Amino acid sequence: MSYSERLHKVIPGGAHTYSRGDDQYPSNAPQILERGKGAYVWDADGNKFLDYGLGLRSITVGYDNEEISDAAIAEIKKGINLTRASLTELKAAELMISLFPWADMVKFGKNGSTVTTAAIKLARAYTGRKHVALCAEHPFFTYDDWFIGTTPMDKGIPGESKSFSHKFNYNNIESLEKIFAEHPNEISCVILEPTTFHSPCANDKDGFLNKPHCTNCNCGQKNFLHQVKDLCKKNGAVFILDEMITGFRFDLQGAMKLFDIEPDLATFGKGMANGFPLSALIGKKEIMNLGGILEEGAERLFLISTTHGSEMSSLGAFIKTVEVYQKENVTQHIWDYGKKLIEGMNEIAARLGISEYFEVGGYACSPVYFTRDKDKNISLDFRTLFSQEMIKNGVLIPWVALSYAHKEEELVHTLHATLKALEVYKKALNGNIGDYLVGKSIKPVFRKYN
Amino acid sequence: MSYSERLHKVIPGGAHTYSRGDDQYPSNAPQILERGKGAYVWDADGNKFLDYGLGLRSITVGYDNEEISDAAIAEIKKGINLTRASLTELKAAELMISLFPWADMVKFGKNGSTVTTAAIKLARAYTGRKHVALCAEHPFFTYDDWFIGTTPMDKGIPGESKSFSHKFNYNNIESLEKIFAEHPNEISCVILEPTTFHSPCANDKDGFLNKPHCTNCNCGQKNFLHQVKDLCKKNGAVFILDEMITGFRFDLQGAMKLFDIEPDLATFGKGMANGFPLSALIGKKEIMNLGGILEEGAERLFLISTTHGSEMSSLGAFIKTVEVYQKENVTQHIWDYGKKLIEGMNEIAARLGISEYFEVGGYACSPVYFTRDKDKNISLDFRTLFSQEMIKNGVLIPWVALSYAHKEEELVHTLHATLKALEVYKKALNGNIGDYLVGKSIKPVFRKYN
Repeated sequence: MSYSERLHKVIPGGAHTYSRGDDQYPSNAPQILERGKGAYVWDADGNKFLDYGLGLRSITVGYDNEEISDAAIAEIKKGINLTRASLTELKAAELMISLFPWADMVKFGKNGSTVTTAAIKLARAYTGRKHVALCAEHPFFTYDDWFIGTTPMDKGIPGESKSFSHKFNYNNIESLEKIFAEHPNEISCVILEPTTFHSPCANDKDGFLNKPHCTNCNCGQKNFLHQVKDLCKKNGAVFILDEMITGFRFDLQGAMKLFDIEPDLATFGKGMANGFPLSALIGKKEIMNLGGILEEGAERLFLISTTHGSEMSSLGAFIKTVEVYQKENVTQHIWDYGKKLIEGMNEIAARLGISEYFEVGGYACSPVYFTRDKDKNISLDFRTLFSQEMIKNGVLIPWVALSYAHKEEELVHTLHATLKALEVYKKALNGNIGDYLVGKSIKPVFRKYN
Repeated sequence: MSYSERLHKVIPGGAHTYSRGDDQYPSNAPQILERGKGAYVWDADGNKFLDYGLGLRSITVGYDNEEISDAAIAEIKKGINLTRASLTELKAAELMISLFPWADMVKFGKNGSTVTTAAIKLARAYTGRKHVALCAEHPFFTYDDWFIGTTPMDKGIPGESKSFSHKFNYNNIESLEKIFAEHPNEISCVILEPTTFHSPCANDKDGFLNKPHCTNCNCGQKNFLHQVKDLCKKNGAVFILDEMITGFRFDLQGAMKLFDIEPDLATFGKGMANGFPLSALIGKKEIMNLGGILEEGAERLFLISTTHGSEMSSLGAFIKTVEVYQKENVTQHIWDYGKKLIEGMNEIAARLGISEYFEVGGYACSPVYFTRDKDKNISLDFRTLFSQEMIKNGVLIPWVALSYAHKEEELVHTLHATLKALEVYKKALNGNIGDYLVGKSIKPVFRKYN
């Protein structure tokens, strides 16, 4: 049996994350990986790939950064998970709060899904309301019913569990106003990411690559977040920012710092601990403390209580990751590398005369590539082809996550691979894409049927 | 500020698990711990305690067992969390299935709560029904709404989310039959632990300490599980066993092996990886594969998809933990130690003439101590006093979890501490308990108000 067959035999979906699945990769992608180091991963046959997947964006400093790994290992030698609260847990919690001075308290989790759902629960308890407004453009908030029930993949979810979720559109304050109007005094909270990948700035195309992108311009982005916050305040709803994608990548203090906005609650995950399993919910005391045990006579709320929430290895990795960020200015490196990568890849497309078919955009710290067919429609076939050709040239680039380990050598390698890949891409534009694709095309994650 | 004050200032509840909270311990308990090794933990001031808490029962071999720690560290050096499925993930999945031949597939998680909720979702999808029957005597299935909504701590939970949950009683098949009768063709699944702590055998008091406890007797226990299974089959409901507490402690192959019963789905967590953050959902292909991606045209189900579900350090620890179990016969050691501990502690109580007030029972692999006041009523005050006096004698025993690191020396220490503690206990029975308690008493976790 192939590795892929063995994986699908014992694991539903063949992996523990749908975005790691076979349907998300061209058929020449490595089926299984053995290890990673710095910016590279190796498959089971010893093939080496320059990696832009980075453990689903959870790696920001680099695979097995020695300082961070050593800090995690030191916690393993302390027994990893003790019977009462640990010194490491306290230190990590105090550090998290020090990074976000508007927040008073933190609860750690292992995956983002746990903490976003906990934020919703707190908001419901705080407001005594059931309904939730969530942003339609943001692809993933949690594996839990209140969100997955709003996607086409709603199998196994009682209608009642999703009936309280309402979607609004990013940069469209009217769509959110409409939800508040239709459900007066029923909306417990609004949850969204600070930004979207695909349309970073409505007004300022030129600012696309600059950091901090929106602090000096008056674009929709920044206004929108403040409009959302005002609307929450006016309607007594809790304002939640989900920084799973943006946190520890846009800035050590989150995209919220760049957009000069402070929420009531915020959630973090990927990037906090350079790949170690950790997520966090932070927020204001008056809301967070509903999960506390000290206030005599207060009605209690059961706030994510887990055996492994305070597992020390990941918390030790988190503490050291923050230190490395501060010492090395990791996010600045990521912005700088991303700027060069975006400019370099777009330059190659321009040189080949296919800029209208292949384009890299997004924030420099989190680039996005757009692939279009000969009719200039966004195309998963052409996305598959580009990804396939990059793999042929040793680059695994299902999306573009960057790390501190991506340096000059990696940039040169990537641009060289891009040239090779786009030469084939151009041929496919002028010919038949089917002649160039080795296997099946990538499919969207949230589709109703296989 | 004290450590306790600092913890409560930044973390709701002062810890990441309510059972680690200050309200679960006598006031002389260490407020914060720094490290653990073998059967011992050390607080921030260097005080050493023999520990029966064991990271909320997640440690079964011993804190920082070197073989297991080394296996986990080797995975950290491989980059911990890669972009596609990993060899370690495949190896761990195949190992898990090999332990449970009735199961075909596995999905790993980080905490038990995630996998029990995933089991419910699969059952709902498989049956097209919404309702869930759960066992009233089992204290914790998940932090999610479908379970927490059934406890007194239902703040923040919409009524709709809990309206589908129905409780039956252990060893009372009529109570489950009643639920099926009241909701014909609406019950998607029945979830319970294989056993209860407190009443291991209804018919056979003598069998209390023997292993395998119920395989040779015809007690209620074994019959009950088979009756539940039959009832599920008859009514087309999915039969789920939650082995979070019993798995990797009663037997490497679960309490289900001792009770000779095979469920449709089963969940595991504590003990799988000697304290490393790992849980698992296993089950039959026809149900598990609803979360798969291969069957063309099948309606898709979004089954726990997480960034960190396949984090390799914990999976490496799991693989090595199983090897250590097999090499050292860890569960046999735990049963043997527990038998000696139960007999020894009860002997001391008998010698002091207080057997009717202090008693240790339960399965030998998972002992339970019962504390009664002078009127022979179960008493949290006396529980607090016993726990407090054991701490004075260097033993942290909030409950009784055992590990392979608990050896003869630890048994002698514990029995010596028990004698000292029960001497005070006896005085308090004859006097005023308030004169002996240093601080507040322990409170139940699931109480409506603080």
